[in-house]
Amino acid sequence: MPDFKIAVDAMGSDHAPAVEIEGAIEAAALFGIPIVLVGQEERIRSCLEKHDTSGLSLEIVHASEVITMDESAATAARKKKDSSIRVAARLMREARVSGVVSAGNTGAVMATVKMVLGTLPVVDRPALSTVLPTQKAKPAILLDVGANVDCKPHHLEQFAVMGDIYSRAIFGIRRPRVGLLSIGEEDSKGNELTKEAFKSLKHAPINFIGNVEGRDIFKGEIDVIVCDGFTGNVALKLSEGLIETFATMLRQELEKTIAAKVGYILSERAFRAFRRRLDYSEYGGAPLLGMKGITIVCHGRSNANAIKNAIRVAHDFCKHDVNRIIETEFTKFGITKTAGATQ
Amino acid sequence: MPDFKIAVDAMGSDHAPAVEIEGAIEAAALFGIPIVLVGQEERIRSCLEKHDTSGLSLEIVHASEVITMDESAATAARKKKDSSIRVAARLMREARVSGVVSAGNTGAVMATVKMVLGTLPVVDRPALSTVLPTQKAKPAILLDVGANVDCKPHHLEQFAVMGDIYSRAIFGIRRPRVGLLSIGEEDSKGNELTKEAFKSLKHAPINFIGNVEGRDIFKGEIDVIVCDGFTGNVALKLSEGLIETFATMLRQELEKTIAAKVGYILSERAFRAFRRRLDYSEYGGAPLLGMKGITIVCHGRSNANAIKNAIRVAHDFCKHDVNRIIETEFTKFGITKTAGATQ
Repeated sequence: MPDFKIAVDAMGSDHAPAVEIEGAIEAAALFGIPIVLVGQEERIRSCLEKHDTSGLSLEIVHASEVITMDESAATAARKKKDSSIRVAARLMREARVSGVVSAGNTGAVMATVKMVLGTLPVVDRPALSTVLPTQKAKPAILLDVGANVDCKPHHLEQFAVMGDIYSRAIFGIRRPRVGLLSIGEEDSKGNELTKEAFKSLKHAPINFIGNVEGRDIFKGEIDVIVCDGFTGNVALKLSEGLIETFATMLRQELEKTIAAKVGYILSERAFRAFRRRLDYSEYGGAPLLGMKGITIVCHGRSNANAIKNAIRVAHDFCKHDVNRIIETEFTKFGITKTAGATQ
Repeated sequence: MPDFKIAVDAMGSDHAPAVEIEGAIEAAALFGIPIVLVGQEERIRSCLEKHDTSGLSLEIVHASEVITMDESAATAARKKKDSSIRVAARLMREARVSGVVSAGNTGAVMATVKMVLGTLPVVDRPALSTVLPTQKAKPAILLDVGANVDCKPHHLEQFAVMGDIYSRAIFGIRRPRVGLLSIGEEDSKGNELTKEAFKSLKHAPINFIGNVEGRDIFKGEIDVIVCDGFTGNVALKLSEGLIETFATMLRQELEKTIAAKVGYILSERAFRAFRRRLDYSEYGGAPLLGMKGITIVCHGRSNANAIKNAIRVAHDFCKHDVNRIIETEFTKFGITKTAGATQ
């Protein structure tokens, strides 16, 4: 039985608490991970009753408040002192759990964890990292996708090293290929930020392969792609939108003729396998790197599978002690925090 | 017979001059547009001989030099004084043609046109605009996609107004919905650049609908999406890469079983229609807005269809006198050039 207990914010997603509870039960049953469900006790309990949870390690910790998707992140984090994510973060600070999974308002989750636990002493800025499907079997890590919209070159360097550690520790890539997201492969291409960052990355303790372009992300040749949080967030949401558009347009065309409809039925398994390969829920959420504790942020539209996988990823982060590796390597390679940097 | 003559850089694309010549012949035949093919005369002539061009208005103007895709844009623009794009730009400056179409090195095309013709007096920075397919019948205009990687807020305002004019003049949208590409719909979301630009855009003489996210681009609800050239270029290349990845992954899955293969054959027409909807070549290249003259930049991998459509778009820009509209509206609404701005 693993030792690391994971708190699940049961009130976060669009379909809370049902999907969180289903995902938690699956993770507890499949991986034997002990779980604390945090949120409005009554609602959690009545939802739990619908399932057979005998033999599973599932606790409930009550939190009276809920943060909604359209609330201001900063205000919600500051004022809702008994929100499910705030209580979960507090459990993590008190070492009663080792990690937190939330499909709630991403900004509020980040702000709350930052306020309650803070960043690792060696890190300037945390980064939200996501995993994207590629044409190859292995996924690509993209970061930052929204924790820091305005970045300095040395932030990108720190993101690169954290992404490299993530790729090694969690995906077992021996020497991840790390690229800088830019607008051309030549060293000289980019904006002011990336041109400066390029120089630092050349000397960083990573396998830096230079600039990469948007079209390279999905090819599967690059393990870690680094960018500022604005560009990364646009890229992530654009990808999600395009995948949806692709599916919609394909369905529209396939519905136009009988032959195509029959074709669709015959290809159905292939389509399902294909959509599964593109499905973010297989990859288990976005780790918030560089923060104290382990926080995995899930999409608001997460299903139980996504929650289950995020719990597994949170547990993997604990098991591989990713934060300790970040601290050790940042110190060893002198990628220390900027003196006087503001958070 | 239309009056506007269009110069086609015959040496630009990956498959030059064959696709340029085919595209030019199609445009001349279908739309009656008079065309000047610019490039190495011998090669153009021997390629033209393979086609029946009787009755078409096709001239050749010789240019001895060719700029390749991997050349430095700035150096090539400056040093290759007899390149096909330089000669084409000169024809435009001398009013011997009204527009130029090139599928060559985008950076070199932009630098050459800027050097030979310059920007419109009212415009600070030109913008490269592209057209993206959407779930609806109408496409979306995205700009800037690479002319200016580091932008100031007032550049984004100018891009927005130029994009608005483009949408009205060429696509006939009466009151285009203009959005600012950001990381959340709320007014306060964004980076330093977009937050400042948001304020200007609220007062700009356009139908500004606020921030839009990456996922909104393809929905077809927004006619013009504005961003800096770095973000736009990343977004454009990411979209291209994802569409390719999507097609590859779908094919991989469909090849796995006989049923799926049969399904694929039955759905083939639907797939073709679907790919056609996603095909950039239908939309005819990327206009370089705000520059003197009319320049349409095409993808290096353009086919004859893309060249043909770009010639049509160049002709439309001339017919609707888009540059005059830009000058008139910039002056009328006081969106004048910043004093002392550097190009």
